[in-house]
Amino acid sequence: MCKAQSTSLLAAEIVAELCRCSMTVATAESCTGGAVSQAITSVPGCSAVMRGAVVAYHNDVKTAVLGVSPAVIEAVGAVSEEVVRQMVEGVSRLMSADCAIATSGIAGPGGGTAEKPVGTVWVAVKVRSVVVAKKLQLSDEGRLQNVANAAYEALAMLRDVLKSGV
Amino acid sequence: MCKAQSTSLLAAEIVAELCRCSMTVATAESCTGGAVSQAITSVPGCSAVMRGAVVAYHNDVKTAVLGVSPAVIEAVGAVSEEVVRQMVEGVSRLMSADCAIATSGIAGPGGGTAEKPVGTVWVAVKVRSVVVAKKLQLSDEGRLQNVANAAYEALAMLRDVLKSGV
Repeated sequence: MCKAQSTSLLAAEIVAELCRCSMTVATAESCTGGAVSQAITSVPGCSAVMRGAVVAYHNDVKTAVLGVSPAVIEAVGAVSEEVVRQMVEGVSRLMSADCAIATSGIAGPGGGTAEKPVGTVWVAVKVRSVVVAKKLQLSDEGRLQNVANAAYEALAMLRDVLKSGV
Repeated sequence: MCKAQSTSLLAAEIVAELCRCSMTVATAESCTGGAVSQAITSVPGCSAVMRGAVVAYHNDVKTAVLGVSPAVIEAVGAVSEEVVRQMVEGVSRLMSADCAIATSGIAGPGGGTAEKPVGTVWVAVKVRSVVVAKKLQLSDEGRLQNVANAAYEALAMLRDVLKSGV
């Protein structure tokens, strides 16, 4: 099965689980550019659970719309645990969502450094009051595939936290 | 050429034109769910022009985040010229973007009515102070293709308004 099909199935599984638990979801995306939101909204009937998304591509949008601290971005960079934690809190508050996903990473081809090479992605997932963050080090398969892989992993994280019953 | 390739080329053309004119862009999406943002952010180097996006799937997000009037949604529905005009103004203000695209439509399979069947999509495009809105009546090719077609048409509208030299 190709990654696009796996992502669709995962999104459908998440929408079904959120419907079952009467919970809503929102996303805050930097490197994935809307791919996580698009996967969720591809599921027919998602409007029962999907609140919306903020694609915070420019750092000004992360701070002005999602409430991320400019000092934190300055100190540790936008691709960091602190920033995705603030993004996931910010979007769940902004959109009154029970659950949320946030992504920030280096999709490439440019932007990589020795410390944060292309394929470095931080993901945070929130389910009710629980927030979990994880650093992914994806192998670089080119910008489009890197985004698709990051979106898949972010959705898988939310599915896993939902299944853990928090 | 398939629609996905055409959309990628169109997005690349728009990013190049915005770079040339030193203008920024943002999107406000309902039915397209982030597909327009994803097309733009798929272009390497888009960070020079892309501010971000709001996927306003739930009407509460249209009103609370984008400033769409609840009375207008009540009076004419979310899939309407008035609403996409308010969405495009709202997101360009929120994200300090020179240009913006807004979409609201019926992607299907549910949600269609005699007056607004599946495939009805309102699109608004803003370039500086000029706002243009258009109703699309797309043939129903299934939810995923309807979204892809709407995203393509929305990008084509922005390209055309940019080329008109407003």
